[in-house]
Amino acid sequence: MLFPEGVPWVRYHGIYKDLEVNVIWPGQDPLLGVNNVGTISAALVTYASVTELKPDLIINAGTAGGFGSKGACVGDVFLVSHIAFNHRRIPLPSFDVYGIGLRQAFSTPLLLKEVNLKVGKLSTGDSFDMSPEDEALVRAIDATLIDMEGAAVAYVADLLKVPAIFVKAVTNIVDAGNPSLEEFHANLADVSATLNQAVGRLVDKINGKRMSEL
Amino acid sequence: MLFPEGVPWVRYHGIYKDLEVNVIWPGQDPLLGVNNVGTISAALVTYASVTELKPDLIINAGTAGGFGSKGACVGDVFLVSHIAFNHRRIPLPSFDVYGIGLRQAFSTPLLLKEVNLKVGKLSTGDSFDMSPEDEALVRAIDATLIDMEGAAVAYVADLLKVPAIFVKAVTNIVDAGNPSLEEFHANLADVSATLNQAVGRLVDKINGKRMSEL
Repeated sequence: MLFPEGVPWVRYHGIYKDLEVNVIWPGQDPLLGVNNVGTISAALVTYASVTELKPDLIINAGTAGGFGSKGACVGDVFLVSHIAFNHRRIPLPSFDVYGIGLRQAFSTPLLLKEVNLKVGKLSTGDSFDMSPEDEALVRAIDATLIDMEGAAVAYVADLLKVPAIFVKAVTNIVDAGNPSLEEFHANLADVSATLNQAVGRLVDKINGKRMSEL
Repeated sequence: MLFPEGVPWVRYHGIYKDLEVNVIWPGQDPLLGVNNVGTISAALVTYASVTELKPDLIINAGTAGGFGSKGACVGDVFLVSHIAFNHRRIPLPSFDVYGIGLRQAFSTPLLLKEVNLKVGKLSTGDSFDMSPEDEALVRAIDATLIDMEGAAVAYVADLLKVPAIFVKAVTNIVDAGNPSLEEFHANLADVSATLNQAVGRLVDKINGKRMSEL
């Protein structure tokens, strides 16, 4: 069994063209029935999946908030260049760098030429809102996108030495003065469908290639 | 091997009296050389240890900041009654509860009578400082203690259905107007020694007992 008994994480898997594909989802909280969002679930499910499945590549696909001032529009799909945390403030030498945890995504210049995706930096935090302290760290890395999982996946991928790419579709614009939650809910279904198509195109382009050809 | 190759986590183990004891430490960041503090490392190392070792009991031992207004003094050792996160704000129905993640520690009323420890609630966040937003969630659970790992250990212990207790020694008082970092550094060595002794006494008292006798 891939995951321990009783754990709510979900795995779908199958063969697509020449690829063995595992789709992993952290599932829902058994008591509250809400999706297991945030960095801890993302880190755990990535760790459990990678140690068991030993994949060649992780694709972290999800939705994100976008900064209109950085060129993000609702429905855009981004391939992420860099990822960092925005909620880990440890004002001690080197600990500050550890907390921010800036990492580069696995570089796929050839893949990027083949698909029509924007490129930007992603900032990850454990809150749906953005406090002034969070915002300072978001701006420090010049992020275009903000989510609640990416940097945790990047941390575990780095720890276990597995290449990871990050595909994020924009559900709401966080710096336009619109209520984020309403915009998020209004766009979630459409944007998820767009994300789904983009990830499908990526997987099609990845198929048949070596890692060095991505 | 307990942990995947290349992972910096550390395990010491041995037999003490009638107990098989594993001491697990998340180790240091290989690039930065700093201790792997915070919720993600704590969650990962707890998950990896519990799934492999299947322990009867987790003891999460560490240092913490304390609220003087709640009766905490430097050098006090607390047995924690409840644990929650202070940095996960998700203003959606049920997601808010998920974010805060309030959990009760495994109840050990008989053990508590045998050892001289204070009792209090613990609030966990991924920052060493405390933003106004964090502080509101710390105060919402009436926390006496604040750390950077406890609630992550509690989350994984709950996920994997392993009883967990939390022993936290106070290095600095967070509401007395003193610079927390200086106080933390000045007291860390002495308070760690005190914590060490307290955990030793707890383990001595746990030895030979069933879980229902704790």
